[in-house]
Amino acid sequence: MRVGILGGGQLARMLALEGIPLGHRFTVLEGASGPPAGVASTVVAAAYDDPDGLAAIAAASDVVTYEFENVPAGSAAYLAARLPALPPPAALQVAQDRLAEKRMFCELGIPTAPFHPIDGPADVEAALAVTGIPAVIKTRRFGYDGKGQVVARSPGQAEAAVEELGAGLIAEGFVAFERELSVLAVAGREGERAFYPLTENHHQGGILRVSYAPAPGLVPPSGGPLPGVPPQGATPQGAPSPDLTPSAVPTPPPGPTPSPGPAAPPDPAPCLQPEAERLAALVLDRLNYVGVLAIELFEAGGHLLANEMAPRVHNSGHWTLDGADVSQFENHIRAVTGMPLAAPRVPGPAAMVNIIGEFPDLGAVAAIPGAHLHLYDKAPRPGRKIGHVNVTGGDEAAVMHAVTRVWGLLPGAGKLPRATCR
Amino acid sequence: MRVGILGGGQLARMLALEGIPLGHRFTVLEGASGPPAGVASTVVAAAYDDPDGLAAIAAASDVVTYEFENVPAGSAAYLAARLPALPPPAALQVAQDRLAEKRMFCELGIPTAPFHPIDGPADVEAALAVTGIPAVIKTRRFGYDGKGQVVARSPGQAEAAVEELGAGLIAEGFVAFERELSVLAVAGREGERAFYPLTENHHQGGILRVSYAPAPGLVPPSGGPLPGVPPQGATPQGAPSPDLTPSAVPTPPPGPTPSPGPAAPPDPAPCLQPEAERLAALVLDRLNYVGVLAIELFEAGGHLLANEMAPRVHNSGHWTLDGADVSQFENHIRAVTGMPLAAPRVPGPAAMVNIIGEFPDLGAVAAIPGAHLHLYDKAPRPGRKIGHVNVTGGDEAAVMHAVTRVWGLLPGAGKLPRATCR
Repeated sequence: MRVGILGGGQLARMLALEGIPLGHRFTVLEGASGPPAGVASTVVAAAYDDPDGLAAIAAASDVVTYEFENVPAGSAAYLAARLPALPPPAALQVAQDRLAEKRMFCELGIPTAPFHPIDGPADVEAALAVTGIPAVIKTRRFGYDGKGQVVARSPGQAEAAVEELGAGLIAEGFVAFERELSVLAVAGREGERAFYPLTENHHQGGILRVSYAPAPGLVPPSGGPLPGVPPQGATPQGAPSPDLTPSAVPTPPPGPTPSPGPAAPPDPAPCLQPEAERLAALVLDRLNYVGVLAIELFEAGGHLLANEMAPRVHNSGHWTLDGADVSQFENHIRAVTGMPLAAPRVPGPAAMVNIIGEFPDLGAVAAIPGAHLHLYDKAPRPGRKIGHVNVTGGDEAAVMHAVTRVWGLLPGAGKLPRATCR
Repeated sequence: MRVGILGGGQLARMLALEGIPLGHRFTVLEGASGPPAGVASTVVAAAYDDPDGLAAIAAASDVVTYEFENVPAGSAAYLAARLPALPPPAALQVAQDRLAEKRMFCELGIPTAPFHPIDGPADVEAALAVTGIPAVIKTRRFGYDGKGQVVARSPGQAEAAVEELGAGLIAEGFVAFERELSVLAVAGREGERAFYPLTENHHQGGILRVSYAPAPGLVPPSGGPLPGVPPQGATPQGAPSPDLTPSAVPTPPPGPTPSPGPAAPPDPAPCLQPEAERLAALVLDRLNYVGVLAIELFEAGGHLLANEMAPRVHNSGHWTLDGADVSQFENHIRAVTGMPLAAPRVPGPAAMVNIIGEFPDLGAVAAIPGAHLHLYDKAPRPGRKIGHVNVTGGDEAAVMHAVTRVWGLLPGAGKLPRATCR
């Protein structure tokens, strides 16, 4: 099938690389020159709202999808009138507006931090009455990687933030979360579903640095299946559910074995996976969703709160290229092209380390057992995501060891965010 | 790095798809129009001996490699004079000539079937005196997929075969083998080595149909490591060895568990892996080899005999795309570009089913849990390899079950060659 993608960055690149073996061909619409996806697709070089560019990608495609949520509404409408445009444009619209997104979560009964719209200084008082102090003041649209948001620790700071950020804002209560998680859900054209195990994410300066998957604590110590996950898995076809049991974890490399500690108190984490899947399914249903949907979550006091969603493949799912038998990219392409979804099998722990701003010694990274290099053909620039390294193999300690080695090669990386110890 | 490949077929396609994430760019030299590798590389459309084409790919590349062994000697020499051409042209020369190949095996002490050159009818008697009857009469050059060979069951048939095939032949003794295996070895530019577990291959009509990996019987029933495989693995960097232990096999899906049978007699298979690696290393050393080398082997009476070698990635290693953490394609690209090799980790059993001549229902294939589709963008034609399906997940029984389902979808596939029961 001929698949069009709006955007030619690293997500489009990985979608194409994973979709080509399925027999598909890719065309990307991208105005920037030399886009990362260019090595594996035909490039229509035009802006996302260029009429000729849109006509060209529509003519070159049987289905069109997106690598980013900020697709101009007119472009999405133009494409959807001519060919299947998936995920549906309505999902893009919700995801483009933090307020619409939060209101949808709220209507679906999905817990979030308290929030209130702010359209000018006059709204600050009412907003803070809802959110409390501190509050996070964010632009409703076009924020990413921590841009367009300010933490306000006093009413004065909130007023200053509104002054700085302008109109079209949202105030959110500051959540004292224990950790950040994300769930990746996939919906097929026929309504079938698949889910990846929750991923634990660590940001620095608003940018994702490291992910650990499955999020530590999801695996019950007894070695049994996850409570609440039906044994026949997530799809109507009866495909097996993600295999997270310790018996599926490969043998650790030779080395000292940590001695078992004293019995731990009951951990709520094993219940989080079914809860995350339930919440994600509510969103999939509401939006008649097709494709991969990522929801960023906070874990706080044993419960999940939705932070935001991305109607696309997501940085926190990059580990699936090496840590799952079917990646988020392949499943997204399966979904939008109408192929059956694959219930992903996750044989052991995995991690992802972003390469941001500057390259490490790539030969040294490649020499680390279990390290898998994914570069994007992007020139280094401060704060820019230019690649990532997936780590697989062995138990959590072995993965942590390899992550530490990878992290140590990153120029100026600072302190490694370690996986949460449960 | 800019990597050139002579040939633009499915092997070049998979090399490019696996090498792009490492940051490399690909150019292929291919005279046929619309080559499979075209989706992920720049195509220089010219014959393999076209001076302009060779000049163009040399100019576009920092290193050049091949997807087939029958590279014209002049082309290999031209390229090797201008840039690193790997594997070394000398390896191509040996692999192009069955007689040179067998003589090299012989000189290295690698067992083979008895063989004798035949340059005309006058040589038949001397040849049969060496090989016995039946004998396999083969062209020394340009044979593939069972083409250019005849089994002679009498001196008269041998003479007729020589009449048919012409000069430049080799006669080989007919080996009453128990099964066909292959070993995939990788050599880096600095002399480092990596090996994949032996693969069991099943041919029909001279064409590979199904591979099972690791070849059944390699895993000792006790769950211990393979005898003879050093715990610190195949590379000088101390990377872990392939992980073939049953403890690394993912949990089988729910279903009846086969009851343990009576104690089996001692099986020679566990000793085959180190023996295969030893033999392959002799060839790597002799040829100053860099890249992936495949050696097809016969197992007969508990021993290995070398049949032939391929100085390239090989159909019997396609399972590594899904069954190993690092594929033969990635390791070949790592090797020829001077990156460190990866000691492949193989967490459980895998299989590969070729799609030959005609497509199955691809949606039905994709719906089988553990089935991974790899299509080549080739038009169906009788006897033509147009894709393959890898199968992973679960134990050997689960893999066999999925292989059976895949096989059942192949048009006119006949009887499934099952994995050898040890």
